[in-house]
Formats: sequence, structure tokens, C-alpha cells
Amino acid sequence: MTQAIALPVHAFHEAALQRQNSLTKPAGSLGVLETVACRFAAWQGQSIPAALQPAITVFAGDHGVTAEGVSAYPSIVTGEMVKNFAAGGAAICVLARAISARLEVVDVGVLNPLPELPIVQAKVAAGTANLAVQAAMTAEQCAAALEVGRAAARRAVDQGANLLIAGDMGIGNTTPSAALICRLTGHSVDSIVGRGTGIDDAGLVNKRRAVQQGLDRLHDKPLDGTAVLAELGGLEIAAMAGFYLQGAALGVPSLVDGFIASAAALAARAIDPAVADWLLASHCSEETGHKLALEALQLSPLVALGMRLGEGSGAAACVPLLQLAIKLHAEMATFAQAGVTEKD
Amino acid sequence: MTQAIALPVHAFHEAALQRQNSLTKPAGSLGVLETVACRFAAWQGQSIPAALQPAITVFAGDHGVTAEGVSAYPSIVTGEMVKNFAAGGAAICVLARAISARLEVVDVGVLNPLPELPIVQAKVAAGTANLAVQAAMTAEQCAAALEVGRAAARRAVDQGANLLIAGDMGIGNTTPSAALICRLTGHSVDSIVGRGTGIDDAGLVNKRRAVQQGLDRLHDKPLDGTAVLAELGGLEIAAMAGFYLQGAALGVPSLVDGFIASAAALAARAIDPAVADWLLASHCSEETGHKLALEALQLSPLVALGMRLGEGSGAAACVPLLQLAIKLHAEMATFAQAGVTEKD
Repeated sequence: MTQAIALPVHAFHEAALQRQNSLTKPAGSLGVLETVACRFAAWQGQSIPAALQPAITVFAGDHGVTAEGVSAYPSIVTGEMVKNFAAGGAAICVLARAISARLEVVDVGVLNPLPELPIVQAKVAAGTANLAVQAAMTAEQCAAALEVGRAAARRAVDQGANLLIAGDMGIGNTTPSAALICRLTGHSVDSIVGRGTGIDDAGLVNKRRAVQQGLDRLHDKPLDGTAVLAELGGLEIAAMAGFYLQGAALGVPSLVDGFIASAAALAARAIDPAVADWLLASHCSEETGHKLALEALQLSPLVALGMRLGEGSGAAACVPLLQLAIKLHAEMATFAQAGVTEKD
Repeated sequence: MTQAIALPVHAFHEAALQRQNSLTKPAGSLGVLETVACRFAAWQGQSIPAALQPAITVFAGDHGVTAEGVSAYPSIVTGEMVKNFAAGGAAICVLARAISARLEVVDVGVLNPLPELPIVQAKVAAGTANLAVQAAMTAEQCAAALEVGRAAARRAVDQGANLLIAGDMGIGNTTPSAALICRLTGHSVDSIVGRGTGIDDAGLVNKRRAVQQGLDRLHDKPLDGTAVLAELGGLEIAAMAGFYLQGAALGVPSLVDGFIASAAALAARAIDPAVADWLLASHCSEETGHKLALEALQLSPLVALGMRLGEGSGAAACVPLLQLAIKLHAEMATFAQAGVTEKD
């Protein structure tokens, strides 16, 4: 039985806004740092939100659609990168240490066996089927992957996290992400499909063809959110969607990373629209179509740093900005406290 | 005698770029975080730059041009805010604590006497003259203010800073900043003059008139960089320019804050073009004309957070991103170290 998602508490948003307008600065002059502090007030249910304790969960899975030649890297790299996560050498490991985030890595669908690694072993299948020609997951696999994500969110929140970040690792996963975004937003393949880790012009044409083929398979078929996810998604993408849904159900916001994370967020929203109130955008990635995906989610990115790595890296990079926003909100003096004259 | 400014060391930039391309991520996928790490390599003269030890110096001064009614706040607020800095309640104080930066506050030209405060007492004059009708500073005052900034940079670097941030406090100071930017870039008053701390439409028209009047005074007069600064600048703006120049002479880069800081940087460049290689942009502020000022400096902002506070706040907010860039560069595993297969 799935928990219902509540609304963030508007009264705390208002109280936080009032506090922002009393602090020793021209009203609004901290820009989005003010907005963000007020949103955390509503999420945490207190007018002065507490410092963030972020938890990052990286979900890894492989993709049958790589058979179509859609990626610049071979599928074996997914498992190799999971080893790199376990050894602490990947970008997300460095970032997690730097921002003092809990980091968990979950094998939800890596092709290669990784039984020896100190990660969460939750493999639903050894990769998905080729979405260009058939459903990427069975309904059972998709449900199991969603539950893997939900369980990860519960673990993170149990251990004190008040901000969730889902990261992804999966060679080929910009392809299912693009397919999901196209299906769930109605945008064209050309406007959404990009170069991922770096395919060339011919590769891009081929990748667009593969996505179009997958979409055409389902043309005119009415599908609910979970069915779309099963048809066009990936095991790690389904887990990310479950992670967002469970976080929201537990009253903990998620900071959405890049292209893959936004596809997962769109899938989560298709499953339960109430999740949208618990999502905050981090960066706008360089991947074609991310901007449109964020717009469809009605999310404004905090920054655009030209990143396109995945793993949760763009979201993790934004955490210090959020911490600063909350610290400013909590620690700045008011005009009255400081004896500073207000605006004429 | 002024020290000459050397070039950053290109060979270390190249070595850092080579390292970036060996790290376990698609080349370029960390976006500007890669670019930034390479620039610090050149500035620090080592292929793996050290963590940043930032120093923030806030220069405070008042402006005779406030007699023209150009600001939403009265001049008394400059001194009141300096007290707030000394008490630790201002935005820049919170940010400095959060990013572990040395914070120094310098009275280079506050109207009100502040002898009791634990700040650097370096008042050159009790505010400037009204730039709309006469030179804001005498040549001697401008030289003295530049030297106040130079001395502050020397103190910061002596105490171990490897990143400098100049902040400003001065009611009315978007007016001299706009005047400097117009004169030094050739942009029109309409494209550069904005609302500062929040004047209304009539105030904006009046502020544009005041800036235009100052510019017209000097029309067709050939002036060198220091003379432009004396005519149209401010005591804190001159100190900021001196701070940037001395930082560069000492081989330490400066992270440029918002509109006022960019005006100071343009003035510094007009005095010695070699300073430009030691400047890094932080944020693009909401103040009209900041984008054009950054373009004139050939600087790309890291972020645009809708901030318009000054004090060095936008630059301070970016420091965690720079620290992350450097940590990623230093701590990520290479493909060879991690045994990860490279691109096809």
C-alpha cells in the first residue's frame, strides 16, 4: 500500500518570507537563495529550516537498447563505474565527501555480476530489454525497481536525511530517458535526444531513430505512468522514480539532478502528480532536451554549469548553495536587531 | 613603485587539462568545473591546485551623488551596515563563516565617524563629492584609496589567502559604478543604470539623469584610468580596484562580485590591462548592466542567482563551487587507476 503524499505547509513558507523581508538587505536581493530558504521552511514545517543532511543514492542499471549502438561507451563500463563508486574514485564520491552527504550505491540492474562489492545488492534483472523493439521491463520488473528506489529513500530518511538526491549510472541511459521525456511531454525526438556521453553525428541520427522506433511501438496506446516507465524506461530510472515518490510520501524533498533524473521525475509525476511539490531542480545540464524536461516539470534550475555527467553530480554540486541559503536565512540580523534604517 | 603583473603559467593550465581528460568521466562533462580547476592550476603554478583559502575584504564609503536622490536608502545606512558587519549580522558575515573565509572590513570613506568599531580604519575622506557636478575625488584621494585597497590585498595574501574577494558597502554606489561602466565601455546610460537597492520608476529616470550629467561633464576629455576613477568613482570602488591590482601583482586571483565590483574591475583594467588575467567572474547580478560590464571584462559568470546585494555576497556564494571543482580535479580516479574502459 502506497503512502499518500501531503502538501508542503504553506504557512511556514509565508512565515519564512516575512523573516526574509526583515533581514538586513534590500528585499529580494538574495535572489533564489531567498526563494529556496522559504521552500525548505514549507518542506520542513518550520519557519527557520534546519541545515541540510543530504543523502545521495546512485542507482545503476544496464540497457538493452545499447544493442542499437546508441552510446559512445560499451555496457561493461556500467559495472566498472560501480566498482569506481565503491572505491571512492568517481565524481559523485568526491562530491559526497565534500558536502558531507551519505552516499549509497544500489545495483538495481547491472549486466555484469557485482556480488563482491560493498553496495546494496538489489538487482531486479541483468539489464533491460531493447526498448526499440519491445518493452524495456515487464510490469513485475518495473514494480520491483520502483520498490528498490522506495526502500532506498526509506533507509536514507531513517538515517536522518532531510534532502534526497538520486543519481544514475547506466551506459545508454540517455536513450530511455529521452524516450520517456518525449512520451510524457509530447516533445519531438529531435528536440529531446542528445549526444549523451558523446556520440558523433551519425550516432545521433541512429539514436534518434532508436527512440522514434520505441515511441512508434506505443503510438496511440493509452498507458498509465507505470506502464510508460516499464515500456520505455530503465531499471535505475524506475528506482529513481520510486525514490522521489517515497521521499515525498515521507515529507522529504528531492533535489533533481540532470537529464536522466528529470526523466525519472516526469515518470514519478505521471504515477502521482503530488510528487511535484517535493522536487527542487539543481542544474540545467548540457544534454539536449534537459531544459524542456525541466520546463515540463515546472522546475527552474538553480545553476547551469555546463555539466552532463549524471551520477547525481549536478545536484550534489548545488547542495552548498542550498546550505548557504538556509544559513543566511537563519543567521542574518534583522533591521531591528542591527539598528539599521529601513528603506525610505 | 607598483609591482608588475605577471602572466598565469600556461604550462600548468595544459597539464591540468590533460589530467581532466584522464579522469573517470566523459571529457568535458563537468563543464565549467573543469575550466575553473585548470585556471587555478595556472594561477597557483601547480597542475593540481590546492584548496582555496579565500579572503574577503569589504570596503565601505559614501557618495556625494546621493544628494541627487539616486538611492532608496539614506547615506546613514552605510555606517549602520558597517556596524552590522562588525557585529557579524550581515549577509557577508554569514557567508564568510560558512565558507571559512577571512573577513576584513575597511572604512575607506564612510560619512559617519566609526572610530569605535573593530574594523580597519583607513578613511581617506568622509564620502566623495557629487560626481554629477564635480570630480568625485581629488587625484590625491583616489591614489590614497587605491593604496588602501592594495594594502588590504597585501594583508590578505600575507595571511595565506590564495583567492581574493572584494566586497562593497556604500549607499548610492550603483550610481558611480554605472558612470564608470558607461565611460569605460561606451555603453549608454539606459543600458547600464539600474534600480540599485530598489528605486522606483521616477527615481530611475532621475538616476539616469545624474549619471548622464556626470558623463557629460567629461565629454571629449581624454582621461587615463586613474583619472576616470577619480572623476566618476567612489572611495570604496577605488580601493577595490587597488585590491584587484595588488592581488594580481602578488600572483593571487580575485573572484569578482557584482555590479560595483565589475565597475572596480573595469577601472583596474583601465589602470593596468594585465590585471584581467587574474580575474574570475562569480555571479551575474540582477542589476541592469552587469551582464554588459562582465562582457566588457570578457568574463563569463559561473552562476546567475538573481542576487543584487553587493558586500561580496555573490562571489562568496560561488566559493563552494570553486572548492568542489578543485576537489574533483584532485581526488577523482583516472581511467587507468580505476580500470574503467575508455570511450569506443
